[in-house]
Amino acid sequence: MALLYKADPVRGEHWRALFAEQAPDIQWRAWPDLGNPEDIRYLAAWQAPDDLSLLPNLEVLFALSAGVDQLDLARLPPDLPVVRLLDPGITRGMCEYASFAVLSLHRDMLRYRQQQFARFWQAHLLQPAAQRRVGVMGLGQQAQQILATLRPLGFALSGWARSAHRIDGVQCFAGNQQLPAFLSQCDILLCVLPLTEQTQGILDRELFRQLPRGAALINMGRGGHLVEQDLLDALASGQLSGAVLDVLQQEPAPAEHPFWDHPQILLTPHIAAMTQPESAFAVLLDNIRRHQRGEPMLGQIDRSQGY
Amino acid sequence: MALLYKADPVRGEHWRALFAEQAPDIQWRAWPDLGNPEDIRYLAAWQAPDDLSLLPNLEVLFALSAGVDQLDLARLPPDLPVVRLLDPGITRGMCEYASFAVLSLHRDMLRYRQQQFARFWQAHLLQPAAQRRVGVMGLGQQAQQILATLRPLGFALSGWARSAHRIDGVQCFAGNQQLPAFLSQCDILLCVLPLTEQTQGILDRELFRQLPRGAALINMGRGGHLVEQDLLDALASGQLSGAVLDVLQQEPAPAEHPFWDHPQILLTPHIAAMTQPESAFAVLLDNIRRHQRGEPMLGQIDRSQGY
Repeated sequence: MALLYKADPVRGEHWRALFAEQAPDIQWRAWPDLGNPEDIRYLAAWQAPDDLSLLPNLEVLFALSAGVDQLDLARLPPDLPVVRLLDPGITRGMCEYASFAVLSLHRDMLRYRQQQFARFWQAHLLQPAAQRRVGVMGLGQQAQQILATLRPLGFALSGWARSAHRIDGVQCFAGNQQLPAFLSQCDILLCVLPLTEQTQGILDRELFRQLPRGAALINMGRGGHLVEQDLLDALASGQLSGAVLDVLQQEPAPAEHPFWDHPQILLTPHIAAMTQPESAFAVLLDNIRRHQRGEPMLGQIDRSQGY
Repeated sequence: MALLYKADPVRGEHWRALFAEQAPDIQWRAWPDLGNPEDIRYLAAWQAPDDLSLLPNLEVLFALSAGVDQLDLARLPPDLPVVRLLDPGITRGMCEYASFAVLSLHRDMLRYRQQQFARFWQAHLLQPAAQRRVGVMGLGQQAQQILATLRPLGFALSGWARSAHRIDGVQCFAGNQQLPAFLSQCDILLCVLPLTEQTQGILDRELFRQLPRGAALINMGRGGHLVEQDLLDALASGQLSGAVLDVLQQEPAPAEHPFWDHPQILLTPHIAAMTQPESAFAVLLDNIRRHQRGEPMLGQIDRSQGY
């Protein structure tokens, strides 16, 4: 019985050592060295091989990421369980990045970055956090942890998701009907939505128009959420004042991308969170053992909803 | 009975309005319009006038800042009470800035800033916060709030001060004897010390040498704590990997200062915290009322220690 790994080879060596030490009954294979494909029951991958008929005895696809939009679910066998990686290391990374991004915008750090380049020493008035309204789009497990991390900093917090939620200290909005009310009171909008057909391009001109003038954007979801030209237009008109972006439509961003040298955009190369073999291994192994015992796995996606 | 205000005139107008509304018995005067100097019992100032004999009936000097090193204490009448401003708004600002600075260094944001300039998309491995040791120099009220803010982010925390402290979840070191042990385990060193004769120039070559190689520095104290050339040398040699600085020896920094365009230095113009009239007013008025009732004031400094 074997597990096939198909992702970054350097981190793969960490995974291999962890399996050898703690789960020696599960043979480790690293793509493209399949060995006997009939042995392979589990696939742990960032992206699946194009042709899964290579693996006739595959029982579960474990995505090595919290989101699964990089997988073309329509091309996978419809009865193949697909499981997201609910790695606490990923969640911690997202919380760190969200705190950094919110504080950067709250404390005018894009402006001070420009002032440093320009050798210009000038302080600007500081707004108390209690008067800064941070709104999170997406209210899943990660988003709730992000909100819990922001809360002690004193921000006024709200959240929006497709379905209704109740979260202590967070004003929650649900569905398309309440989206305008949510947006109208977000000084900093932070997107951690899953990427689906419904959320593709949701961060667009029409949405920006509904934010308070001068609001700022953080995208930690996927590049597909953002209509990039609409962001440029909103920054040019002053409707938005700044953005912190960790994801783009095309990654790596091409050298001619207009975001690279935009003074009001802080751009990072999809680093908000990375799967950490140390913390992710325990979660993955727990799910394999659950599957072996016939128990429900944690993070199995609903193939009809795509997340 | 009057209070003389001597600080930023724009913020002074906020103060004037707050006094008019909430303490009309205290006449407001703004430097240099003293009116009859004999009326003036209280001075609220960033820096005192050179000649305090101008104010024959002065009873208390209220510094409009948490630190009082900008006052030349030796030149003030020895029996004049000097009171620091323990504004909760200042403490909140310090906590926000400290979180921003620690997260910036923890998450390699100086490197990503350079990569954005260079149009270079490359992720780097991420170290878990639990493996990142943040050490705070100074363990006063502000430092303790900063440590409490950093704690939920999962960092390994330590602190150093002249005298012994016990703080939950923080490994505390005291005095010159324990300074080397403290320094040897600080990946990120954050200075919020008061500036005194003892701490002047404490952030120097000899101190940097005792940090782990590749450590990073945050100075939120005063510019006088840092020997600037020693920081440049430590960055050049790789002994230090980066610095976030909010204060400099000379402020505003001259245009030719080498920190402006240093890729490993994030420089901000002394904005970590600003006195907020809204939150500071209540603290100042409370101290005035305490003085009028003959009760001890909060934040009165020990003239012999200078803080």
